[in-house]
Amino acid sequence: MREVAVIGVGIQKWGELWEKSLRDIFVESALNAMKDAGVDKIDSMYVGCMSSGLFTGQEHIASLLADYLGFNPNPAVRVESACASGGVAFRQGFIEVASGFSDVVLVGGVEKMTDVDGGTATYALGTAADQEYECYNGATFPGLYALIARAHMSKYGTTLEQLADVTVKNHDNGSLNPHAQYPFKVTREQVMTSTMVADPLRILHCSGITDGAAAAILAPVELAKSMKKNPIIKVAGSGHATDTIALHSRDDITFLRATAEAARRAFDMAGVGPKDIDFAEVHDCFSIAEICVSEALGFFEKGQGGKAAEAGETRLGGEIPINPSGGLKAKGHPVGATGIAQVHELVTQLRQDAGKRQVKNARRALSQNMGGTGGSALVHILEVA
Amino acid sequence: MREVAVIGVGIQKWGELWEKSLRDIFVESALNAMKDAGVDKIDSMYVGCMSSGLFTGQEHIASLLADYLGFNPNPAVRVESACASGGVAFRQGFIEVASGFSDVVLVGGVEKMTDVDGGTATYALGTAADQEYECYNGATFPGLYALIARAHMSKYGTTLEQLADVTVKNHDNGSLNPHAQYPFKVTREQVMTSTMVADPLRILHCSGITDGAAAAILAPVELAKSMKKNPIIKVAGSGHATDTIALHSRDDITFLRATAEAARRAFDMAGVGPKDIDFAEVHDCFSIAEICVSEALGFFEKGQGGKAAEAGETRLGGEIPINPSGGLKAKGHPVGATGIAQVHELVTQLRQDAGKRQVKNARRALSQNMGGTGGSALVHILEVA
Repeated sequence: MREVAVIGVGIQKWGELWEKSLRDIFVESALNAMKDAGVDKIDSMYVGCMSSGLFTGQEHIASLLADYLGFNPNPAVRVESACASGGVAFRQGFIEVASGFSDVVLVGGVEKMTDVDGGTATYALGTAADQEYECYNGATFPGLYALIARAHMSKYGTTLEQLADVTVKNHDNGSLNPHAQYPFKVTREQVMTSTMVADPLRILHCSGITDGAAAAILAPVELAKSMKKNPIIKVAGSGHATDTIALHSRDDITFLRATAEAARRAFDMAGVGPKDIDFAEVHDCFSIAEICVSEALGFFEKGQGGKAAEAGETRLGGEIPINPSGGLKAKGHPVGATGIAQVHELVTQLRQDAGKRQVKNARRALSQNMGGTGGSALVHILEVA
Repeated sequence: MREVAVIGVGIQKWGELWEKSLRDIFVESALNAMKDAGVDKIDSMYVGCMSSGLFTGQEHIASLLADYLGFNPNPAVRVESACASGGVAFRQGFIEVASGFSDVVLVGGVEKMTDVDGGTATYALGTAADQEYECYNGATFPGLYALIARAHMSKYGTTLEQLADVTVKNHDNGSLNPHAQYPFKVTREQVMTSTMVADPLRILHCSGITDGAAAAILAPVELAKSMKKNPIIKVAGSGHATDTIALHSRDDITFLRATAEAARRAFDMAGVGPKDIDFAEVHDCFSIAEICVSEALGFFEKGQGGKAAEAGETRLGGEIPINPSGGLKAKGHPVGATGIAQVHELVTQLRQDAGKRQVKNARRALSQNMGGTGGSALVHILEVA
């Protein structure tokens, strides 16, 4: 296997991008990444996208986007694993470069979600759950994560204040991110009195509906060195795992098994552990998710994620900063793009280019991206070579 | 790179499988393939599926199917490239095994299409074309392929009789295939007087709407040898290419550039040419498609595909038998499964297990799977090691 580097990243300001189509925003991010990498030729491409069929009436998007990028006749593959689609795209690109099948691979993610009404978006997002057993009986994602939150509160004493503190921290960070959809701060009181969605989750515990894309360019470390890319950002570990898709099939709904297993695989590949990570971007689709993820990754003991958030251990300057970008909550969550945007943040930070939200002396970082209520999970570890 | 073998294949009788859900038919095929391979453990899985979101309201299907197969926590990835999704799944599995990332990989394809009405199915299939430029202006796939057919007739003198002969041949072959959706013969006259769909294409020039799945197991050739699999069916070549997705962007709509480029890559990898192929399974979503594909693959000169079909060169016993399985026309076309079902037929034939439709002395075969009007294409070459 060859060592793989991320030689370029690209994104745009996320939000309700009504004046642009899915292809526009993907190509914008892809061109930004190619410019950043200093390449004008790509051997192969992976695109993560959850549901362009339901959101925009367009499938076959890898070929469509390759066409719009002037990339024919090279191979282009769309991968889908619900909200983990971007993470899967990154891993497939990593495998293709590491194996020697291709030298320069573009990995991207995209979702155009705000051109449909809220009910249609809720239906589309619901297709990441078990349609026959969960959705058919009325479950939605806020409802499913509310079950997880109640179970975590009951089992470990996690409080409403702790849930709120995750949101407050992520908006603090997001206010420093020029690409964020919601770049403003919120207070604990604002979170705790915001509109109830699915008890105990309020609107400010939930990530929004977002249009956005992100892209990264992968190449062998040797090639990056010859291009005099500095610093070289290396992919040290990659882990992918699955769990039961339906929440009712799990032994313990407060523990994210797929995330723990993906992390184990990524840590093993990288030869490091949770204590060796300087910061992490994780999948806070709901504030309870960030708490559960921080435990599954081994940053905190089971049941201690809420207390750690309240104590400020996950803030910028804390023990292990989580979501310096603002996370899905403040940065936005165009579902297929999220996994690649996490990589964008890791690379930006590891280059010491993150401005006011810079994690000091960041040398090794982790991204965690998951689908549904955790039925799929990807963990990647990047480090300065 | 390691040499890769197909050590097992599985399928079921295709048709309108109303008593089974998407997960049922996938798991059925996957278990058939695992039984055929003699394995009970899989390291990784790829699932090709075009539009489970629009057809069944379910995305995130790789994790769902991994769950139903008892396959957690191993990685499972869904890939989508319209009707070429199965071919992409096969190629991704090939890359993963060849590279040494995994030893035993399940590659499958599935589509459940008959639970929605015809209009909804037409809309879902249309998402493989350019939504903003083609579908918005009223184009459907029969209409787009009708344009190709008219252009081919005008440029090369291809006749209505030649188009009909493709259908007659594929139904002759399909009548010998126990898994085929339409296992009956049709006459040239029946084809030429069947209901008009999009002039000059009639209903008997078009593949149907099908529920079905197919699966294959990939492993290193060395492992296959140690398992005493006989004969060893090796993946000799793999090619993937893209073209403009919209028909109006192409220089010549009668020539399938992506198929020609994918074939070039596969032939180069295998070190063989069109004349070294004993038979082929190709993407005859419409009868004109088979004619164009047979030219793009280099079996016949440009413009000669229709004449070759009429002369019987593509029949069983002919110069280069095409679609001994019955093809998409007679076997059925559950879009995401088609690319894997082609591999099922290749392996069955190369094992000399195809019964009355056996291609005599078949030692090396080719599959060609494409999406949309050819905006993506996969070509694989399998041979007896």
